[in-house]
Amino acid sequence: MSQFSFRLLAEDGPARLGEIDTPRGIIRTPAFMPVGTAATVKALYTHQVGEAGADILLGNTYHLMLRPGAERIARLGGLHAFMGWEKPILTDSGGFQVMSLSKIRKITEQGAEFRSHIDGSKHMLTPERSIEVQCLLGADIQMQLDECIEYPASHAESERAMHLSLRWAERSHAAFQRLAKPGQAMFGIVQGGVYDDLRRHSAEALVAMDLPGYAVGGLAVGEGQDVMLRTLEATLPFLPRAKPRYLMGVGTPHDLIEAVERGIDMFDCVMPTRNGRHGLAFTWGGKVNLRNARHADDPAPLDPESSCPAARDYSRAYLHHLVRSGEHLGAMLLSWNNTAFYQQLMQAMRLAIAEGRFASWAAEMKVRLAARDG
Amino acid sequence: MSQFSFRLLAEDGPARLGEIDTPRGIIRTPAFMPVGTAATVKALYTHQVGEAGADILLGNTYHLMLRPGAERIARLGGLHAFMGWEKPILTDSGGFQVMSLSKIRKITEQGAEFRSHIDGSKHMLTPERSIEVQCLLGADIQMQLDECIEYPASHAESERAMHLSLRWAERSHAAFQRLAKPGQAMFGIVQGGVYDDLRRHSAEALVAMDLPGYAVGGLAVGEGQDVMLRTLEATLPFLPRAKPRYLMGVGTPHDLIEAVERGIDMFDCVMPTRNGRHGLAFTWGGKVNLRNARHADDPAPLDPESSCPAARDYSRAYLHHLVRSGEHLGAMLLSWNNTAFYQQLMQAMRLAIAEGRFASWAAEMKVRLAARDG
Repeated sequence: MSQFSFRLLAEDGPARLGEIDTPRGIIRTPAFMPVGTAATVKALYTHQVGEAGADILLGNTYHLMLRPGAERIARLGGLHAFMGWEKPILTDSGGFQVMSLSKIRKITEQGAEFRSHIDGSKHMLTPERSIEVQCLLGADIQMQLDECIEYPASHAESERAMHLSLRWAERSHAAFQRLAKPGQAMFGIVQGGVYDDLRRHSAEALVAMDLPGYAVGGLAVGEGQDVMLRTLEATLPFLPRAKPRYLMGVGTPHDLIEAVERGIDMFDCVMPTRNGRHGLAFTWGGKVNLRNARHADDPAPLDPESSCPAARDYSRAYLHHLVRSGEHLGAMLLSWNNTAFYQQLMQAMRLAIAEGRFASWAAEMKVRLAARDG
Repeated sequence: MSQFSFRLLAEDGPARLGEIDTPRGIIRTPAFMPVGTAATVKALYTHQVGEAGADILLGNTYHLMLRPGAERIARLGGLHAFMGWEKPILTDSGGFQVMSLSKIRKITEQGAEFRSHIDGSKHMLTPERSIEVQCLLGADIQMQLDECIEYPASHAESERAMHLSLRWAERSHAAFQRLAKPGQAMFGIVQGGVYDDLRRHSAEALVAMDLPGYAVGGLAVGEGQDVMLRTLEATLPFLPRAKPRYLMGVGTPHDLIEAVERGIDMFDCVMPTRNGRHGLAFTWGGKVNLRNARHADDPAPLDPESSCPAARDYSRAYLHHLVRSGEHLGAMLLSWNNTAFYQQLMQAMRLAIAEGRFASWAAEMKVRLAARDG
């Protein structure tokens, strides 16, 4: 199979079970994509990411274009070869990091001008350059450049940015059609802040472009879960049933369940690895803060329900000691545990949808995940 | 086999091939012990240390008694269970770190009084307490408490500390005989600075105690390789052929070869892991500084002669990128490579001794290791 395609296998209410076929392998949906910011999922060996159950990971265009550079990665055989990952990769457009990381930036019709947070060097990210970089990286799923605005934003500001993002979608798409290889796909990104009318307009305009997938962007930026879910509900009815739907930058296990319940198919988030580096573990019994002194003498494993060795083969006392001592191994084990937990959570969701019991599974799981044993 | 014993399998000039039998397994000598300071060999999963070829690792009494605490580790089943390492463990006495890490310390006949470098708390390390801690940790090979002095030191100062260390050896031994389990062993430590007469006196007095092994301490503290090797040559003739000889805190690959050539059987050093965290790799072609810009576009693996995946499965360009980006994976891969290289080096030495060609192997290897490709 050399073309990109999406197959819906089952629906259970709005929740969907599917498969994205790509030349580099199948992505089971709902899917969570671990984030490999700088060509590494932080504190994990790349093979652990696949063994944990991930079918796809995400690379950050902004980071990779600045260091080590997209042309360099292309000369070295592309991002897959560079980091030793053979399955699909999705890259973002770089727009979000320009907003969140670079200090000096100027958004014009042409694109986003910014200074690198690494060395202060000046760069211009246009829709065309973003796609060019993503093609140099060899991304299987690429994202249009969009303008990500800060929250809160007025209706007028959200509308302006949404229209700019639509014009950039057209330019991104044109560049993609010129540069991409067969089997690669570019997704559009619905913007419009927290305003239902803008979200609907953005979704309808993108759908008219008949792209192979659609993302919902500009959420999880501080608006709170209620507003995020309400905005999702106002957006998803205007996206086609037959295309994958990707909620960018989300989120907690609870967020994922709520979003799948509303019909989202794909996610990415740094939370599993970032929390892992800070001593926080996700488990089937809720979130666990390994820094907490109550774990100092606990011989129990982190999560006996998990299939991940990090969750089963070490005592909480040992993990507590590693975290308190600032040892690399603490970050390594907790990032591994969390990455595996997120994949196991997605697998449990896929199974519940396949068996037509997603609503009851979700209700029970939300209660379990709300437990906090510190 | 439930007792501790040492068997010489071959001699090739002063170089020796042997086996230490312990209830927890055989230690092939010459042996290099990776350092697991705080119950973890930094940036490695514990199983990788064994898979790299190590038969034994070293734990630091000073670090472990301060955090998480020896009594706590004992309650949790001992250091082996705590960190998930089933093979033998050697612990040092804590004396060296009291000298190098704690700010305020006072050495008396009784022991070493010091303040923790972590929280400033006050502690007293006596020979009896050091052995008690090592027994609580469950160390298979334990070390007497000795006084480690700074370099340079006068003959008088070196003599005073050497005699104190001998009295502490007697007290350590008495405590060990009271507290240790069958199959555990305590080594004495030869002191005496760079003074041949003191080294001889120390060695002869320790040998009179008929301990199961002897270490040479107080070297690799700034005296330079020439002085270190000369001091070794002045010491080793006074140690018995039938007991293992351990050179503490050494060293570079070149140091190891020179010391094995003079009859040393065991080593420990933080160099493989510490250098790994700083972007420096040991290879069969010499030392490689992965921070160097010349690696930025190099698709070649780090060391095709190594059997370690870290040396074979990634380009130098990727390792350079990881190191420059400060990614955990850079420290993980280079610490792994270096740990594996040291074990492969020991294996090559053991083979050369077994085949009676150590001198020619060593001469050739010293030339290869002197190569620097930056």
